[in-house]
Amino acid sequence: MKFSIERGTLLRAVGQAQSVVERRNTIPILANVLIEAEGDTVSFRATDLDIEVVDKVSAQVERAGATTVPAVTLHEIVRKLPDGALVEMSDDGASGRLTVRAGRSHFTLATLPKEDFPVMASSEYTSNFTAAAPVLRRLFDKSKFAISTEETRYYLNGVYMHVAEGEGGKVLRCVATDGHRLARIDAELPPGAETMPGVIVPRKTVGELRKLLEDDDAQIAVSVSETKVRFATPEITLTSKVIDGTFPDYSRVIPTGNSRRLEVDAAEFAQAVDRVATVSSERSRAVKLALDEDRLTLSVNAPDSGAAEEELAVAYGDEKLEIGFNAKYLLEIASQVDRENAVFLFNSSGDPTLMREGNDSSAVYVVMPMRV
Amino acid sequence: MKFSIERGTLLRAVGQAQSVVERRNTIPILANVLIEAEGDTVSFRATDLDIEVVDKVSAQVERAGATTVPAVTLHEIVRKLPDGALVEMSDDGASGRLTVRAGRSHFTLATLPKEDFPVMASSEYTSNFTAAAPVLRRLFDKSKFAISTEETRYYLNGVYMHVAEGEGGKVLRCVATDGHRLARIDAELPPGAETMPGVIVPRKTVGELRKLLEDDDAQIAVSVSETKVRFATPEITLTSKVIDGTFPDYSRVIPTGNSRRLEVDAAEFAQAVDRVATVSSERSRAVKLALDEDRLTLSVNAPDSGAAEEELAVAYGDEKLEIGFNAKYLLEIASQVDRENAVFLFNSSGDPTLMREGNDSSAVYVVMPMRV
Repeated sequence: MKFSIERGTLLRAVGQAQSVVERRNTIPILANVLIEAEGDTVSFRATDLDIEVVDKVSAQVERAGATTVPAVTLHEIVRKLPDGALVEMSDDGASGRLTVRAGRSHFTLATLPKEDFPVMASSEYTSNFTAAAPVLRRLFDKSKFAISTEETRYYLNGVYMHVAEGEGGKVLRCVATDGHRLARIDAELPPGAETMPGVIVPRKTVGELRKLLEDDDAQIAVSVSETKVRFATPEITLTSKVIDGTFPDYSRVIPTGNSRRLEVDAAEFAQAVDRVATVSSERSRAVKLALDEDRLTLSVNAPDSGAAEEELAVAYGDEKLEIGFNAKYLLEIASQVDRENAVFLFNSSGDPTLMREGNDSSAVYVVMPMRV
Repeated sequence: MKFSIERGTLLRAVGQAQSVVERRNTIPILANVLIEAEGDTVSFRATDLDIEVVDKVSAQVERAGATTVPAVTLHEIVRKLPDGALVEMSDDGASGRLTVRAGRSHFTLATLPKEDFPVMASSEYTSNFTAAAPVLRRLFDKSKFAISTEETRYYLNGVYMHVAEGEGGKVLRCVATDGHRLARIDAELPPGAETMPGVIVPRKTVGELRKLLEDDDAQIAVSVSETKVRFATPEITLTSKVIDGTFPDYSRVIPTGNSRRLEVDAAEFAQAVDRVATVSSERSRAVKLALDEDRLTLSVNAPDSGAAEEELAVAYGDEKLEIGFNAKYLLEIASQVDRENAVFLFNSSGDPTLMREGNDSSAVYVVMPMRV
């Protein structure tokens, strides 16, 4: 194998690969990236056995071939090479060494046989569709904060992507929850997605997927089966197993009868919550919201360290209400609001509260109250 | 006590205080900042029993008084207040609470009696002088990287500031070493410093001092005794115990007869060292320098992971030499060089190597070689 490639292109491809590679590996070859050169293309493949990423880039291939080298070391080397450098990579197929040359630098890296590299089995996908990058970005960005980190509730360790019945017909929906708060984000259903089985996309996959979605003009090819999901741009293919479990029936926890409506500037609200939470004890972080005619009073009372109170001018016309929340949950939810105004819909101080952006029900958040 | 103060001024003063406060405290009052209001001045005082910082700022004092509150919580509150806010702080001297008001925010913090706050005893200083901030900045910035972190060699856990005999007469000198490398930085001796006893300024004090030295025009009043050192601007006074130990006779380890002279672009050299070190095993990080007529070859050979080599065009006219160094030490020393060229003076592959900026001997570094 022998090829030359521009340093910037190489850095992006190897960067994606090393990010999939797990830092602590008991199987040595999983620390490696599989490099395959053929025609005028070189592909870089990495896997942790659950996720596989393949990045195909164009290069001047002088001699076709394939080998594997440590992804993290290769990434470090390429990162430190000067911008604009032309990098030549070659191996003689026998020495067990890959040579990397750029300018007056010269590296050799230990290789492992390409035959040992676990390439993910290809699958039959039951559903194939295309979605614009900004659409997928919104679906995952606005839901992922609610993913549970509790390993025992493994079926909550991801974003549930599925087809659902929205207000105006079928939608592509992403839901995440940890039992304390929930995010439900809808987008127009792309043609071809109607038959898609619902899948739980693992947290790490959501993180890797994010890197494919930076380009506003990109169209992402999505393929879904019962066990796998695949996201692809012309260069990068990200394949992932989905979480083997049943996502709970979240519709039961989304309140429909909440009628006490509070409208508040989302940024002001978040800043005030952040300020009053400063004095709260690390463990509870409970903030009390006291609602009265067009006035919201946020307060924290931590007997050991002190107390805090802040008033906000809001739109509220219902009867008085006092309700407590975990400050962290309120902050995370408020930071999802892109527009000026967040609308909260309360029932009683013991019931789940609903939050959305203005009257837009395509992004809905639920947060459980806590006793204060 | 009652006073009003501009948020920015308060943030700076409380920021300096909370940085001195140790995060893990067994003595509760050491977590607090002592606030004293009198005349048109408020002072903020914090200590860890080794270092004390006092920041005096002007404020509208309505009622004189003093109290102590948790420094970290107060800092968090002030940080989160909007820029430009006027902050009112008050206590009634009896409730054990300090009230902080700004706009529509309102906090109360638990206080501890001001009488319990350990104010550092004032000292007789044997030497008082004034130094420009940039002079002190250079002395400490260029030496502190070499401070030892080994707690058993506590007398190396700081920068040794003392009066020494330089090439052109007496100088103010800072030296730090960990036994593997050494930095010796000289500055013109300020009037009044002649009689200064040599003191070892602890690492944490060097860090806190750095914040007083940002302003190029600032003049710093320095006071030194056998046991304490004090640095003061008109607003901030930083007092610190010095390390109670004897700094070793460093002059013995600074080679004087090294005659093999290498001149190299410091930035190019650092980048090349960084690149070849990528493949080295984490533990040794040994880089080999092979010198030949106007050519320097840097190389690393790590049997497990691979090898790296890079050539640099340099100025070198002596006989061939091969010598090994810890990559981290080389990088740290090379990053001290402000000018283009670093000059290395070698003796043999087993002897300490000297590095300086061009022909300037007011900043000299020594690094021990390692076997490669």
